[in-house]
Amino acid sequence: MPDVMGTLGRLVMGRPTGEFAPRAKPSPLRIRIALPLLAPDALSSVAYAPDEILLTLAAAGLIGVSFSAWVGLAIAAVMAVVIASYRQTIKEYPEGGGDYAVAKENLGPLAGGLVGGAAMVDSLLTVAVSVSCGAQYLAAIIPPVEDHTKAVAIALVALITLASLRGLRALDNTVVVAVYAFIGALGLTALVGGIEILTGTLGPSPADGLEVIPGPAFERGLTGLAGAFLVLRAFSSGAVALAGVQTISTGVRRFRDPKPRNASRSLAILGVACAGLLIGTLLLADLTGAIFVANPAQELRYTSGAPVPTDFHQDPVWAQIAQTVFAGAPPVYVLVTALVGFLLILAASSAFRWVPALMSMLAQDEFLPKQFYRRSDRRVAAHGIVTLGAGSAALIAVMGPSVTRLIQLYIVGVFLSFTISQLGMLRHWNAKLPLAKTTAERRRMAGARAVNALGLVLTAVALVIVVITKFTHGAWISLGLVAGAFWMMVSVRRHYRRVDGELKLPKGGDRTDLGLPSRVHGIVLVSAMNRATARALAYARATRPSSLEALTVAVDMARVWELRRAWDRANVPVTLRVLDSPSREITRPLIDYVTTLRRRAPRDMVVLYIPEKVVRHWWERWLHNRSAARLTSRLRHVRGVVVATVPWQLDPSDAAAANPRETGQ
Amino acid sequence: MPDVMGTLGRLVMGRPTGEFAPRAKPSPLRIRIALPLLAPDALSSVAYAPDEILLTLAAAGLIGVSFSAWVGLAIAAVMAVVIASYRQTIKEYPEGGGDYAVAKENLGPLAGGLVGGAAMVDSLLTVAVSVSCGAQYLAAIIPPVEDHTKAVAIALVALITLASLRGLRALDNTVVVAVYAFIGALGLTALVGGIEILTGTLGPSPADGLEVIPGPAFERGLTGLAGAFLVLRAFSSGAVALAGVQTISTGVRRFRDPKPRNASRSLAILGVACAGLLIGTLLLADLTGAIFVANPAQELRYTSGAPVPTDFHQDPVWAQIAQTVFAGAPPVYVLVTALVGFLLILAASSAFRWVPALMSMLAQDEFLPKQFYRRSDRRVAAHGIVTLGAGSAALIAVMGPSVTRLIQLYIVGVFLSFTISQLGMLRHWNAKLPLAKTTAERRRMAGARAVNALGLVLTAVALVIVVITKFTHGAWISLGLVAGAFWMMVSVRRHYRRVDGELKLPKGGDRTDLGLPSRVHGIVLVSAMNRATARALAYARATRPSSLEALTVAVDMARVWELRRAWDRANVPVTLRVLDSPSREITRPLIDYVTTLRRRAPRDMVVLYIPEKVVRHWWERWLHNRSAARLTSRLRHVRGVVVATVPWQLDPSDAAAANPRETGQ
Repeated sequence: MPDVMGTLGRLVMGRPTGEFAPRAKPSPLRIRIALPLLAPDALSSVAYAPDEILLTLAAAGLIGVSFSAWVGLAIAAVMAVVIASYRQTIKEYPEGGGDYAVAKENLGPLAGGLVGGAAMVDSLLTVAVSVSCGAQYLAAIIPPVEDHTKAVAIALVALITLASLRGLRALDNTVVVAVYAFIGALGLTALVGGIEILTGTLGPSPADGLEVIPGPAFERGLTGLAGAFLVLRAFSSGAVALAGVQTISTGVRRFRDPKPRNASRSLAILGVACAGLLIGTLLLADLTGAIFVANPAQELRYTSGAPVPTDFHQDPVWAQIAQTVFAGAPPVYVLVTALVGFLLILAASSAFRWVPALMSMLAQDEFLPKQFYRRSDRRVAAHGIVTLGAGSAALIAVMGPSVTRLIQLYIVGVFLSFTISQLGMLRHWNAKLPLAKTTAERRRMAGARAVNALGLVLTAVALVIVVITKFTHGAWISLGLVAGAFWMMVSVRRHYRRVDGELKLPKGGDRTDLGLPSRVHGIVLVSAMNRATARALAYARATRPSSLEALTVAVDMARVWELRRAWDRANVPVTLRVLDSPSREITRPLIDYVTTLRRRAPRDMVVLYIPEKVVRHWWERWLHNRSAARLTSRLRHVRGVVVATVPWQLDPSDAAAANPRETGQ
Repeated sequence: MPDVMGTLGRLVMGRPTGEFAPRAKPSPLRIRIALPLLAPDALSSVAYAPDEILLTLAAAGLIGVSFSAWVGLAIAAVMAVVIASYRQTIKEYPEGGGDYAVAKENLGPLAGGLVGGAAMVDSLLTVAVSVSCGAQYLAAIIPPVEDHTKAVAIALVALITLASLRGLRALDNTVVVAVYAFIGALGLTALVGGIEILTGTLGPSPADGLEVIPGPAFERGLTGLAGAFLVLRAFSSGAVALAGVQTISTGVRRFRDPKPRNASRSLAILGVACAGLLIGTLLLADLTGAIFVANPAQELRYTSGAPVPTDFHQDPVWAQIAQTVFAGAPPVYVLVTALVGFLLILAASSAFRWVPALMSMLAQDEFLPKQFYRRSDRRVAAHGIVTLGAGSAALIAVMGPSVTRLIQLYIVGVFLSFTISQLGMLRHWNAKLPLAKTTAERRRMAGARAVNALGLVLTAVALVIVVITKFTHGAWISLGLVAGAFWMMVSVRRHYRRVDGELKLPKGGDRTDLGLPSRVHGIVLVSAMNRATARALAYARATRPSSLEALTVAVDMARVWELRRAWDRANVPVTLRVLDSPSREITRPLIDYVTTLRRRAPRDMVVLYIPEKVVRHWWERWLHNRSAARLTSRLRHVRGVVVATVPWQLDPSDAAAANPRETGQ
């Protein structure tokens, strides 16, 4: 089977890029390269957060929407505290383990496992959300995409998965350029939009002539409990803007020395950029008259009172802003919208970068199968990458390419990780504070602890708000997924622990396992007298076992006689024993024979030499060694038996040259 | 992987019945049991042949349909000759190889391969046709089935496949009873129908008030070239009635002694039954006024001239006959129709009986992978059974559950086998005739040869008619499938031939392969110091290699240091060599090391001892031995290297008892 995988792999994955080459180690990067490389995750979440805030508040009509800037400010405040907290994490964990390392080291492996499980689920959702949103921006500039956003989103996931299998490092330059272009494009839009607003030359908004119909509960605006709950829901939707800020804390190693300082500085820059982007977007959306609702057909009407058509198309917020600002220059509008969409798709690809690293950390702590530790091994990485691609494609297929529905799932995991990580940092400082030597040091630590404590309070409150306001909207799905991932990881770890315990060498006296078997009984498995058999016999004899015999199973008596004659002709100095098999079975008589041998002399060891034909093409495997494979798999369970396969390499080209007549039919 | 299959297998297949038990050998049977056991194939094809004759002739309207008895007589005549021919085959090949043995022994292995390929394709079509027709009979008594015949047919195939995986011998009694019940039911219908016709008390036919619209080419009846061609098409469709008569020639061994005589007598009885059934059905259909057309909506109209509704439902011929005859006793009608349907479904299951036998014969001649030879091995048989089930389900899915369309494909393979088999018998007699000692013997042989020659001419003519009249109707598909199967089988045989040639021991002088390697260098692969490693070390030392070393790959330096300390503590009398691996890879450094060793001393042999953890559950395999599996698969291609796996059986229950604390998290 591995070779089938290999062949398929070569077909699908093509030639590997540098990423999976042996001894590849990334060189440290300047801030101006490293920051944009790690930024798409955080920036992309800020690109779709405003849509979600506006959409939630739209339930309360125009009065609700006017409240959006305040929600944005609250989110920016939480973001500032979270970023300050992560700057502490970077300084204390410059190795870059991120939330996982913080949780594991301060709260124990189970907390680490929980963060790991949440991160695995969030990786699926990052991809699903970013790609779905990217597909919406594509639809804004390529109208035919609109009717097939689901198919387009799944196709994009497939494309990113294939690219990841080849190695994403080739995309590094693209990512850096795309991030600067994204920032530049949005900055330009804000600048031009500002000038147009001041000079009163703003173009018509695509939402001109539309108005939001307030929901039945909000006909008198944001009042009472329902109003407060709506604001909280808007907050918890918009809080998705915080997703991705932790990426820098896991990538500290990519920065130049002094790594922690550079990473910390980068995080501050990123925080300012994100907060500015969030507030800026909400203000611009308000000033340009952008409107974004969940169900246009139900929640919008023309100011004339007429309902909007059921197939009404609504672009995402940045597409609406760009359309208004660049009403006179459609190519610029297309360019800006395309850049936002492209950044979103790149953000999806960044999950494919950090998932193998995460799996490697989890595997090192035995939460995942050990082979995932070696993430530079392309075949190992491929398992994680394909699982991520398939999982997120499945999420899109099931939940539709609806950004709003996917975000309900996404946000829970994000804040779960934040909260556990902040709790870990608090315990970290509590443990470290008594060890402080100078007053200055103690004061610095106490300050840092205060930052993390504030972070903990804010993220915990946000988590509670998220779970309460989103539970029926899908948060239960992601809590279930996280619990499932956690259970699987804990089971794997428990299995490894049990095996380790079982395999532990006894201390002191009882060293039976190290004792040598008294005798070695060699058996060569024979089905015909040929070169492969001859080699197996020669090798078995070379190991000088205490006794050696050849064994064949009599499935077809004619062949047994033929074998006997050939055996005598070849003058083999080994006895040939024939096992009877009335049922034509091969495995059972052999197993029975070996078991009997073992029972008679339990201190002896049996070595079974099996000649194996090594074929050139994977499909030829189906034609050879099937009985041997089955026998080997069954014999594993018989104690004291070693199976030695003696390969004979078949070489069709050589054979064809040597015996041209025999190769034809 | 085999264990995953095993677990799935146990889930799906349940406990095996006697068929796959070791040493199971069927006891010989009396004619009255053996004949019905082997008859469903032949009887079922006679059950749907009349429908096809009527359907084809319906293109020429009522005049065409009235011609059906003549077509039936022509088919019965061919059947008589074919049955006489197969009686010769049974006498000459009492071992029961059937068409395959006849073709192989008289016309060479390639002809055998062609017959084998045709038989494999026909097995798919037997199942597809019988089940589709069975579903039609079900629809005649359970109306809701009508709208889902395709789904019902596929479900029936799945059911038969599952039953076959458990072993079909449990159904033997059912088959015998069903065949007698089928014959009895049809005989009763004919008897009651005859009395009703004579007494003028026949009930109303479901086709009363309907008439067939003649096709545009046949408005003046069966005249000219088009008429002749239509009659030929009807003949070639109805010739499907012959399918299955050869089954008895492959099952001679199931009869009591004297086997050939009993089998031959059974074949004669079967022939009379089939011919009588065919003619009887066509006569009864004519007398009861049954009408059967391909497209009721286009080809039928009410005698009033009004068109029939587009969703007009048309029952198969025997359902129509039974409905007319038992118009006053609906339960009898339901019973008769159900028995016909049940026999059709049993006929499908009979293909599942003979396919493993056919594959075993083909495998013995190296046309198929060798493992298929052991057909009593349930896992091996399962591959053939599942392939047959999936293939015929796919055929039904693609071609619809349309009996008519499937028969176009089926009939080609049937007559291809007949013709090759008759040609083989002719050559058989030509070769044997000169060896006849007495005149009586020579006369007997000449007579037999004449029968086979007549059989050859008739089946060859029928084959030509079939290919010509059916080519565009689907015969090209089955010719393509047969060609594909033939090509695959010839490729497999060529591969085995080539390998045999390559492995042949050189005659005389050059005996290098039998020469012993000069030295044995043992290597124990180590990743941690534990009991599995200790056992591998002990076993490696017990084989007393010329030199022995332990080898580990440094993926993680901390673990290497830990291993070194444990190594020293355990006082292992073997040197531990550490291979550097900056890229964290395991396989490559090891392969490089072994290759270097081999290059330095090409006459030496390297034995690599790999400790293997044997797990209890299939999913646990994913957690262990992955690197070892990959290494083993790569090392196969390095000459002079033997891989010996030293298993350590993990036993979770034992471990839990020994170290209760260590098993928990």
